[in-house]
Amino acid sequence: MSSQASPELAAQIASLQKARDEQAAKVSQLKSQKAESAAIKAEVDVLLALKKQLEGLGIVDPRSVSSSSKKAGGSANKSASAAASSSSSKGAAPVAYTLKTPKGTRDWEPLAMSLRKKIFSTIEEVFSSHGAVTIDTPVFELKEILSGKYGEDSKLIYDLQDQGGELCSLRYDLTVPFARFVAMNQTEYGNIKRYHIAKVYRRDQPAMSKGRFREFYQCDFDIAGVYDPMLPDSEILCILVEALDALGIDGFTIKLNHRKILDGIFDVCGVPADKIRTISSAVDKLDKSPWSEVRREMVVDKGLDEAVADKIGEYVKHRGGRDLLERLEHDAVLSAHPTASQGLKDMALLFDFLDVYGITDRMSFDLSLARGLDYYTGIIYEAVTAASAPPGFAGKDGGAPSAAVAAGGEADKPKKAAAAAAKSGGDDEVDESTVGVGSIAAGGRYDNLVGMFSGSKKPDAVPCVGVSIGVERVFAIMMQRLREREAKGERTGVRSKDVEVYVMSVGDGLLKERMSVAKLLWNAGIKAEFMYKNKPKLPAQFSAVEKEGIPYAVMLAPAEWNAESGRTVRVKQQKGKDSAEGQSQGDVVALDDLVDYLKRVGAGRNAVALKDRTRIV
Amino acid sequence: MSSQASPELAAQIASLQKARDEQAAKVSQLKSQKAESAAIKAEVDVLLALKKQLEGLGIVDPRSVSSSSKKAGGSANKSASAAASSSSSKGAAPVAYTLKTPKGTRDWEPLAMSLRKKIFSTIEEVFSSHGAVTIDTPVFELKEILSGKYGEDSKLIYDLQDQGGELCSLRYDLTVPFARFVAMNQTEYGNIKRYHIAKVYRRDQPAMSKGRFREFYQCDFDIAGVYDPMLPDSEILCILVEALDALGIDGFTIKLNHRKILDGIFDVCGVPADKIRTISSAVDKLDKSPWSEVRREMVVDKGLDEAVADKIGEYVKHRGGRDLLERLEHDAVLSAHPTASQGLKDMALLFDFLDVYGITDRMSFDLSLARGLDYYTGIIYEAVTAASAPPGFAGKDGGAPSAAVAAGGEADKPKKAAAAAAKSGGDDEVDESTVGVGSIAAGGRYDNLVGMFSGSKKPDAVPCVGVSIGVERVFAIMMQRLREREAKGERTGVRSKDVEVYVMSVGDGLLKERMSVAKLLWNAGIKAEFMYKNKPKLPAQFSAVEKEGIPYAVMLAPAEWNAESGRTVRVKQQKGKDSAEGQSQGDVVALDDLVDYLKRVGAGRNAVALKDRTRIV
Repeated sequence: MSSQASPELAAQIASLQKARDEQAAKVSQLKSQKAESAAIKAEVDVLLALKKQLEGLGIVDPRSVSSSSKKAGGSANKSASAAASSSSSKGAAPVAYTLKTPKGTRDWEPLAMSLRKKIFSTIEEVFSSHGAVTIDTPVFELKEILSGKYGEDSKLIYDLQDQGGELCSLRYDLTVPFARFVAMNQTEYGNIKRYHIAKVYRRDQPAMSKGRFREFYQCDFDIAGVYDPMLPDSEILCILVEALDALGIDGFTIKLNHRKILDGIFDVCGVPADKIRTISSAVDKLDKSPWSEVRREMVVDKGLDEAVADKIGEYVKHRGGRDLLERLEHDAVLSAHPTASQGLKDMALLFDFLDVYGITDRMSFDLSLARGLDYYTGIIYEAVTAASAPPGFAGKDGGAPSAAVAAGGEADKPKKAAAAAAKSGGDDEVDESTVGVGSIAAGGRYDNLVGMFSGSKKPDAVPCVGVSIGVERVFAIMMQRLREREAKGERTGVRSKDVEVYVMSVGDGLLKERMSVAKLLWNAGIKAEFMYKNKPKLPAQFSAVEKEGIPYAVMLAPAEWNAESGRTVRVKQQKGKDSAEGQSQGDVVALDDLVDYLKRVGAGRNAVALKDRTRIV
Repeated sequence: MSSQASPELAAQIASLQKARDEQAAKVSQLKSQKAESAAIKAEVDVLLALKKQLEGLGIVDPRSVSSSSKKAGGSANKSASAAASSSSSKGAAPVAYTLKTPKGTRDWEPLAMSLRKKIFSTIEEVFSSHGAVTIDTPVFELKEILSGKYGEDSKLIYDLQDQGGELCSLRYDLTVPFARFVAMNQTEYGNIKRYHIAKVYRRDQPAMSKGRFREFYQCDFDIAGVYDPMLPDSEILCILVEALDALGIDGFTIKLNHRKILDGIFDVCGVPADKIRTISSAVDKLDKSPWSEVRREMVVDKGLDEAVADKIGEYVKHRGGRDLLERLEHDAVLSAHPTASQGLKDMALLFDFLDVYGITDRMSFDLSLARGLDYYTGIIYEAVTAASAPPGFAGKDGGAPSAAVAAGGEADKPKKAAAAAAKSGGDDEVDESTVGVGSIAAGGRYDNLVGMFSGSKKPDAVPCVGVSIGVERVFAIMMQRLREREAKGERTGVRSKDVEVYVMSVGDGLLKERMSVAKLLWNAGIKAEFMYKNKPKLPAQFSAVEKEGIPYAVMLAPAEWNAESGRTVRVKQQKGKDSAEGQSQGDVVALDDLVDYLKRVGAGRNAVALKDRTRIV
């Protein structure tokens, strides 16, 4: 310990050393117990963080970081540790920071944000076309609101520390907060179409490049209220098709099923009532496992009678369209089953409505679709695309391949890694080369969730149906496409910033003159910037224009600015259709005409002058 | 305890009872120790939450909730507890939920969201006009990143629970995450103009109706990088003026000062170096306390020499414009002070640039402005407006009144409550009638924050300057204005949803026909909806149109739909300039012409058909 350290610093160091030693003991214990590697890793991470904090204070662990714990824990990927300069002359060394974002989260840099904003606005445009309002709810909810809504996945919920006051958790999805909102405001919002585009949080194993994060956006559209049958359901599917089309997602299929049909099948096959949900969740794995494996899980792991499993197998292998529905309607046993027959009736009406919307051919009625969440009570669906499957898996067993439930709900690790997998050695995250982006959207009808919150005697007093678009996966697909196009040297419509005009000086600095021209443009609503230099060099200014792809340069030169005939500037279109750079000298434009000229040629075409902006209220 | 309870339930109840008893003991102990009332309150809240959970399980505290603890803790405002039906016949009673959002947070209902979106897009338009890119960072950061950046207010940081892995905290502002981002990506983003509109979190005492929340938005614009002096600084002020003008904020003033001038003043007055920051924070209170009180704090609480305090008083009473700067430049002692003279030089250049931008008259050079945060190193500023002051305080001591630092940093409780205050009895939140919305924007130059993260030998390797608009306060002002206008029966441009067309049937249900017309409109990009009923009544359909203020009704009638001359519909403009409702029968339009007709009359004027939407990438 440094002898110059202040008492506070000394106390801090002592406390960190104590914590480090306790943590080291904990890690040793877990290792000797042969605990799960993930659990050990988590504790090693804490240990390493403590050591790093101490290193920042100039205290190196006498035992040093052993190579074995380094291997088990690794240091966080992509982190840059800023070491304090050891030559610091002051007594207390400056703190060294671990410069990274928390595991499973990332920063979104300007180009990515530009693409994300386009994705969001595209989805929002479709959602609002259907008469949806939007609401916002807090990022955290009372813990009790989220508890017990997500089955096994509840362990993935982030809790806030108890700092006095209420116990809270970060929201896990947007559906439960929506149901809570409707239950709280039933009089006013018992009938509502709403969309919500916001971040949710899951302590899952991340697969960052595939769009599986611990913090990620969901784009939800839900309809709450009592209406005539299948009208909201069919519109939700219509919205989903429109949104995915608008996003330019190629060749997607919406897998469709009905919980009541599925439960009816299980019942007529002889599944005991208390096993229906667990058998359902086994069936849900059919998109990534062969029937033989799912059958084994049912029989061996879950104790189902072999004959019952085989009967189920006969049903769930089917997929199709209205033909499949008709086959089930002719199944005397199933169609006589009270629950199943309700589902069949719903599906028949739904197909009618899908025909009206002209989207039946985008659907695949798929009896193997089961969906993980417990709260669904009617139709369920999942949108999948070839791009959402892992590379080693695409097209493996016919039909549209899919990987997991939408938006990070489950880890999906196919048994065989693709050849490329060998390259990725980290154990900090799942092997991304073997992971698809999963389904890109999913949802269903959940009629009892609002009633659960409101404590209504009629559990389905406010029935709901909705869909969630897993926009991170859409983003991952598009970013991939963007990079491919850029690699080919193609231009894309995605720019980091949308400045239209760069104001530059030729020769003398003309600083205040450039500022006044920029202000003229800002006042007119035209996006403009200039170099923050008193006397910028011309090549530096042109390279700023080039780098950002700014379409117009406004150039100030002393002679033209001070011309006897009045102030003039030169406007040059960059990479315009007519001119290679430098070929043309641009147009001479009187300062008074500059704004009109620019609008005429297309810069700030839709610009509204500051003074003309209408007051919001 | 119910004898039918399952073993799991029994264990849960027992564990809750234990926690309740321990918590009750803790509360008693704090009370006997005469602990701070806020601390007691926090623990009482926990106790009440535990009792409520037990009540939900059907367990009533034998000692019941004493009236004294009820008074101390209160139950959360505006919460609706959904009691389980006691006649429930099942053994385990259903869980009763506390239907509320966490303290200091709220839901944003559709109309509020519509207004908020307009505010955000107005600000975003100004920000992007100045060539800013946008980035996003995670809602939580590693705890160490935030620690020690906010002085006393660090106690207001929300921590995430340690669930294994890294220790994290919710972000307290957008500035520190920005500095962390720049330090991590210095090569690529060492020079960056970026804006960021996102939520931040503070465990402060909320004043909800005034826009002071625990979860709230900030709209930040920052410029990082080495440039010629005062160019980024003056542009930030220009952006702030443009943004507040675009928002329609009336009569705001931007108070302006310079840390180096202020520190120079303290030094020449004789403040010891180690007292400069604490004396500075006393000065910062001059916007809500009289000089006599601030002087008392300096002398009595902080041990400053009386003569020194009086010298400070001579300086900090001044406000003005360039005249004040000139007076300081002629102050022989101050202008000879090395730090102060740098500040004076900056201010002179800044005033030159503000003149170029034509915004000098919006500024008030105010030597009493000090700003709370430690990290500022150059100019500092705060935008205030009459609407941002508490009602009992407005115009009290001349000049533009202000209340607190921007965006929730400090509680501001004027000594005398306004008369209206007596009405509000809750002690759960601060008395809102005596609280202004505070300053509506604030910022300054912070040259060493990035260097602190990057561990650079040159602390100001990446200097920064920025501003944060406290948009919740802007929202509170505008929502107030919106309500006043609505109360007068005036129309505003703010609607919950922007549906343009309602498709209805006259006479028969014509359900599939309405669906097909709606789909026609959606495909054309026109926002439309219809009633989810097989046979809706005409008055019900018209009242939906009225309620939402939907401008056009498209009416289907059997005879017109099946007319021999081809399908036709009737289009009626609602509340149009020519017609009282029901007066006109609307125009008969052929179905094939419907989209063109609607675009001609203005519905979907800028609509882009789904098939014409350009691919994002």
